[in-house]
Amino acid sequence: MSVKINENYLLLESNYLFAEISRRVEKYHVENPDAQIIKMGIGDVTKPLPKAVVEAFKDAVLEMGKPETFMGYGPEQGYTFLIEEIIEKDYKPRGILLSTEEVFISDAAKCDTANIQEIFGLDNTIAVTDPVYPVYVDSNVMAGRTGPMQNDGRYQKVVYMPCTAENNFTPSLPEKPVNLIYLCLPNNPTGTALTREELTKWVEYARKNDSIILFDAAYEAYVTEDDIPRSIYEIEGAKEVAMEFRSFSKNAGFTGTRCAFVVVPKELNAVDSDGKKHNLNSLWNRRQTTKFNGVSYPVQRAAQAVYSEEAQKEINENIEYYLKNAAHVKESMEKIGLEVYGGVNSPYIWVKTPENMDSWTFFDLLLTKANVVGTPGVGFGPSGEGYFRLTAFNTLENTKEAMERISKLSI
Amino acid sequence: MSVKINENYLLLESNYLFAEISRRVEKYHVENPDAQIIKMGIGDVTKPLPKAVVEAFKDAVLEMGKPETFMGYGPEQGYTFLIEEIIEKDYKPRGILLSTEEVFISDAAKCDTANIQEIFGLDNTIAVTDPVYPVYVDSNVMAGRTGPMQNDGRYQKVVYMPCTAENNFTPSLPEKPVNLIYLCLPNNPTGTALTREELTKWVEYARKNDSIILFDAAYEAYVTEDDIPRSIYEIEGAKEVAMEFRSFSKNAGFTGTRCAFVVVPKELNAVDSDGKKHNLNSLWNRRQTTKFNGVSYPVQRAAQAVYSEEAQKEINENIEYYLKNAAHVKESMEKIGLEVYGGVNSPYIWVKTPENMDSWTFFDLLLTKANVVGTPGVGFGPSGEGYFRLTAFNTLENTKEAMERISKLSI
Repeated sequence: MSVKINENYLLLESNYLFAEISRRVEKYHVENPDAQIIKMGIGDVTKPLPKAVVEAFKDAVLEMGKPETFMGYGPEQGYTFLIEEIIEKDYKPRGILLSTEEVFISDAAKCDTANIQEIFGLDNTIAVTDPVYPVYVDSNVMAGRTGPMQNDGRYQKVVYMPCTAENNFTPSLPEKPVNLIYLCLPNNPTGTALTREELTKWVEYARKNDSIILFDAAYEAYVTEDDIPRSIYEIEGAKEVAMEFRSFSKNAGFTGTRCAFVVVPKELNAVDSDGKKHNLNSLWNRRQTTKFNGVSYPVQRAAQAVYSEEAQKEINENIEYYLKNAAHVKESMEKIGLEVYGGVNSPYIWVKTPENMDSWTFFDLLLTKANVVGTPGVGFGPSGEGYFRLTAFNTLENTKEAMERISKLSI
Repeated sequence: MSVKINENYLLLESNYLFAEISRRVEKYHVENPDAQIIKMGIGDVTKPLPKAVVEAFKDAVLEMGKPETFMGYGPEQGYTFLIEEIIEKDYKPRGILLSTEEVFISDAAKCDTANIQEIFGLDNTIAVTDPVYPVYVDSNVMAGRTGPMQNDGRYQKVVYMPCTAENNFTPSLPEKPVNLIYLCLPNNPTGTALTREELTKWVEYARKNDSIILFDAAYEAYVTEDDIPRSIYEIEGAKEVAMEFRSFSKNAGFTGTRCAFVVVPKELNAVDSDGKKHNLNSLWNRRQTTKFNGVSYPVQRAAQAVYSEEAQKEINENIEYYLKNAAHVKESMEKIGLEVYGGVNSPYIWVKTPENMDSWTFFDLLLTKANVVGTPGVGFGPSGEGYFRLTAFNTLENTKEAMERISKLSI
């Protein structure tokens, strides 16, 4: 009896989107070593860590070198010093009260959003926007919650909520009840956000249908408009129906440093097959204590320093910088006659390809003719076909250069 | 239709072993605030990071503060600079050749050993030693591979391989074929190791029965005797049947810094239900690229520095120090008439409780009468009942003090 693989893996598309992009870029680079490629594909920041963060990070590293200040295993859930800062600075000012046991520090919102499905049964239906961050879907494919992919590019058992120009990228409430709803707002990849009023409909839907919203707020720092909530808990009653995922990646530049967190309110419950309620905070705690070993101590000290006044000032400047890039991309693409979305409350610009060109063809065109790397919309789901994502995370110089190159193409 | 939980979680023992220990220690501490508690329970190191490691760690943190050296997202599999060091320094000198694609950097051997089961089907049988590191079993319980726990303290579908004084803590080959075999050597918790000859039997068994060995070598740095392999790949033919898990925690003091790795040789295959072979290296790569986001860049630079000559010297001194503690514990416990195992190729000392006292009673006795915290053997499995684990990771002073206190008890 040979060892058997998890056959759900065979249901996955052969390549993770960003791995496929890397492959194509690498191939082009090898064949054209002199090409000056500008990357506006992956959502990776370019500004260095704020000075106060580097300082705190460095001090904590030095602590690790002395017996009297050395830190060994920390709590799997994260250090209280960081959790308290998050509660005080991210939530309390918005009138959201949380206890320290409701916040779990991790190394990535990617890990958290991928792992969260483990505490739920396989018989839950999941709903995702289309297009969507691929990790939500793929982690459920691997777990066996989706069934096979069909000819329309959709997994059999997943409920897709199309977001296209036709509905202004605002997903409609699912027609039939669903259990778990993944919402990323401001959205990756479309760059759109929901107003307070629109998000309230989702919370009400979840309350009415006993659904749970998995709210990915990784891009909350980019919200510029007043009526866009930065946390789902700004909506009344959300604590009973929503978890919230956040990260230090896109605000404080932690993509290479690695720190994130998830809020799991104690009000959140789900049932077993006898209908008995179980607390999801306890379940997630059990998951994390068994399968995770906490985030590096110096990294948590660095994350704590994100909340210092000095770092906040630098972070705001960086975000303004990225948003200026976004505005420039939006403007340039509109100037050459393309339809453009996002880029206002988000570092992502979602472009309609010219003449209904398919996403990968447009990807190859920009790569080979302008040496600019973006992300093909179809990589985020079938409704992303005919769209293309550009990010605002490169330098202003590179962003300008990229826009010039694209503008010169006759598209 | 309410959201359903993963009901496998209900099959877990209510508390993760170390959480229960913390709870009891905390309770005692609150009731006896003046007690000087000495912790010899969790396997956590106390020596600071080596100087060369701190230096490299700090330099990498400073790199993160400058635009020209800032690092964003790294490869999910880890940076080549670290992987190459591992291959060159840990494996090549033992005649083991690996390619860079066969080593995956992670934040914890705990995570790796907990996550690895995800790439395997639920219908595989797993075999574990008894006693065993609880994470191997619990991660399989959560996934639904074990069935319920029975009255004998064993999960229904798990094959247990008892390790007791009667068989000198050397597990016997399973009587019926099993698919996945977890082996931790030198062993946590018993502190025993297998000779080359004994380990060869396991590799041969796996080759003959198409099993896969999940080899946890987190404690390899503590091997002192010549005929004990430090890697399973020292055994001929192991690459076709074994993955190897390692960590920087117990050698270089990374318990609070977080870095580890797993070796998944390209020779490793498993089958789908049609009997078609699939490469496990690719499967694990897919798992990691989808559900993991790589280890903090400065932490990987710190891990790279572990292999510097200067750091190696310090590490060897630290391990000698811990092994001296182990020898002292072994000696002291033997002096008061207890049966003692381990502590030679391992920082763990495995003690038979006096007069067949049960493990938790002995735990409470040492906590309340000597203010010494150890780990009850039964927490590692039913065959651990009547045993107790002490670790060598405290300071020599505290270790001596703890041994004196225990020696004064009339046990």
